[in-house]
Amino acid sequence: MSLIVQKYGGSSVANAEKILRVAQRIVRTRKAGNKVVVVVSAMGDMTDDLITLADKINKNPKEREMDMLLATGEQVSIALLAMAIHKLGYEAVSFTGPQVGIITDTFHSKAHIQDISPGRIRKALSAGKIVIVAGFQGQTLEGEITTLGRGGSDLTAVALAVALKARHCEIYTDVDGIYTADPRVIPDAGKIDIVTYDEILELASLGAKVMHSRSIEVGKKFNMPIWVCNSCKDVKGTLITKENKAMEEVVVSGVALADDEAKITLFRVADRPGVAAKVFQTLADANINVDMIIQNKTKTHSTDISFTVFKNELQKALKVVKDNAKKLGVGEVASDENIAKVSVVGIGMRSHSGIASRMFSVLAENRINIEMISTSEIKISVVVAGDKGKLAARKIHKAFGLGKKQRRSKVRVKR
Amino acid sequence: MSLIVQKYGGSSVANAEKILRVAQRIVRTRKAGNKVVVVVSAMGDMTDDLITLADKINKNPKEREMDMLLATGEQVSIALLAMAIHKLGYEAVSFTGPQVGIITDTFHSKAHIQDISPGRIRKALSAGKIVIVAGFQGQTLEGEITTLGRGGSDLTAVALAVALKARHCEIYTDVDGIYTADPRVIPDAGKIDIVTYDEILELASLGAKVMHSRSIEVGKKFNMPIWVCNSCKDVKGTLITKENKAMEEVVVSGVALADDEAKITLFRVADRPGVAAKVFQTLADANINVDMIIQNKTKTHSTDISFTVFKNELQKALKVVKDNAKKLGVGEVASDENIAKVSVVGIGMRSHSGIASRMFSVLAENRINIEMISTSEIKISVVVAGDKGKLAARKIHKAFGLGKKQRRSKVRVKR
Repeated sequence: MSLIVQKYGGSSVANAEKILRVAQRIVRTRKAGNKVVVVVSAMGDMTDDLITLADKINKNPKEREMDMLLATGEQVSIALLAMAIHKLGYEAVSFTGPQVGIITDTFHSKAHIQDISPGRIRKALSAGKIVIVAGFQGQTLEGEITTLGRGGSDLTAVALAVALKARHCEIYTDVDGIYTADPRVIPDAGKIDIVTYDEILELASLGAKVMHSRSIEVGKKFNMPIWVCNSCKDVKGTLITKENKAMEEVVVSGVALADDEAKITLFRVADRPGVAAKVFQTLADANINVDMIIQNKTKTHSTDISFTVFKNELQKALKVVKDNAKKLGVGEVASDENIAKVSVVGIGMRSHSGIASRMFSVLAENRINIEMISTSEIKISVVVAGDKGKLAARKIHKAFGLGKKQRRSKVRVKR
Repeated sequence: MSLIVQKYGGSSVANAEKILRVAQRIVRTRKAGNKVVVVVSAMGDMTDDLITLADKINKNPKEREMDMLLATGEQVSIALLAMAIHKLGYEAVSFTGPQVGIITDTFHSKAHIQDISPGRIRKALSAGKIVIVAGFQGQTLEGEITTLGRGGSDLTAVALAVALKARHCEIYTDVDGIYTADPRVIPDAGKIDIVTYDEILELASLGAKVMHSRSIEVGKKFNMPIWVCNSCKDVKGTLITKENKAMEEVVVSGVALADDEAKITLFRVADRPGVAAKVFQTLADANINVDMIIQNKTKTHSTDISFTVFKNELQKALKVVKDNAKKLGVGEVASDENIAKVSVVGIGMRSHSGIASRMFSVLAENRINIEMISTSEIKISVVVAGDKGKLAARKIHKAFGLGKKQRRSKVRVKR
């Protein structure tokens, strides 16, 4: 008898009808001969409603009390889901995060799981019960209720799967799986059948937003296979797993487009050791996230540095840099909001040469100028003019054969 | 520094505005130099909303899961109330029932408190914090979340007051205190200043519905003074306390009217030992609550027995009695739904003779026929025709000088 951990997000349990549908899927998995542990998020807009309510009372609530408040959302879901399973004639029992010994550190609103004591879950499973666990929450050793921050329910699911030595973890959502690109931008984007943890980590940070990187990192660390599936359809989802030989056939797994960044260029930066460090330390001190950084030394005694920040932090970043220009040894400062970042990701590119040149050629053929380039072992990102971003993503997507009609499922994985 | 436990019901915290108002009252009590522990119920209709939601999923939910669901209501309230107090610049911390060691038995949906370990509350109080505790909930020794049933938050408050050796417990509601009668029936009804646990126990069971009798019983057992006050006004409420000399001046404390009962009469019941016991055991086995019981032996070898049940259980009760008539030795069975029960309650009547005759005279003067009479040491109840109930209550209320203009506060109690 295999143990499977399933996680259902807020949109999958948004109302009574949907909860009953999810219960049917869970029971099907049980009937197929598996032990099932289910992690569930708060219903639809419930978390937002609670935040709105809190905001009416205190614009700046303490995080401890926000955790106390928000943890109720998942508790409502687990009780209702257990009732729905009972209605179908199956045994089920719900537990809060604290009840199943999910111990976290003390950082309210963004706590990290430190330990899980799955004894209570094991006992319920042995008694033949389906176990429903509240996602997103835990408690400190002192018994304080904490929440895990963005993507917290996914994290609960993957961590529980690891702690329980599950066969795999299934993350149910309202899309069919992970796509080669955002289907709203590239209608031809297709579902990826199999992908590595590393590729998803790059895709997520590049704006794919399918799963939070924290969960993927845990999956990677403990080699827990993660399926991303559609809770409303019976289609095979995307399997996130460790690298294997067969996967290297796929050179590029996906294309990501991000249009929420802006570029800042510092001209005539003094070319001596430690200057760049000082610039980015100053930005970090102001809590500004920096994404790409490009420095290109010219022949003079000064250099130009360009970097990107989120658009909503551009003004703050510009102020910080300008206020400290003298101290930092920076000459002129310029910025550009009209940019887009296009990236390709794929573990295959490590062993296939020429990916970068193919990408740049496609852009050149379409008269799209490249403003910045940044690469990692499994990723190439370019910054182009903002109004050229979608065109660039589409052309690159096609050039790497990612379109639905172009691709054939080269890798078959048995679920 | 005195410790005061305050309890606010659902209508007092029904929205953000009301929560902020409650926070101000709490802070006032703190500023006056008291340590404050606050017990709070779920917001307004939240519990009903959750029940409706559960009903859409499963008409017959397990009580364990209902407890899991409903316990969230109070958890939302404590977090929001703590945030409201923080906004006023005071330190506060919220705790769920399980967090403050409220240990109950395992009877889900109607659990009894077995133990309270107030260490965590004491620590927070010592740190100068206002402590907010979720009412209505606890956990079993095995860590299962339970709820305490009707009046559960009052019970939490009184039990915490006892465990913490508070000076007194304040129950805030949307009325000024406990009245000499239901003001909807008798507009002249006035607030009672001081009343004994025993009187309230009689008044509650007679339909006064101010506080659930379980909380009063705990208050009585541990001699914890309980104030019932209006959360929206600054008026002195009603003090529920043990008997003292001064209180005996007040002969009758209040008049209660109940119109939700029906009368069943069993004619020609065999007059031999054990018959009555069998009749009421049969009803108890069918889970039917019986209130008044009157038996009046006549000269023959049979007797008539009358008793009252709640109207909504009348048909069930009739069926049980008729189905078992032969076995029970019962002749004819009759019932009457058109009845009303009027009761007067007062510890003073123990030492003042003639209360019963005065009550019966008032009824006679007003041509109201008495169908049943039942008395206890501090209570006299009569059953009259249903359409005469309000008139009877009004006339008796007046006859005992309970009207606002009639009474003067004979007893002054320092708060």
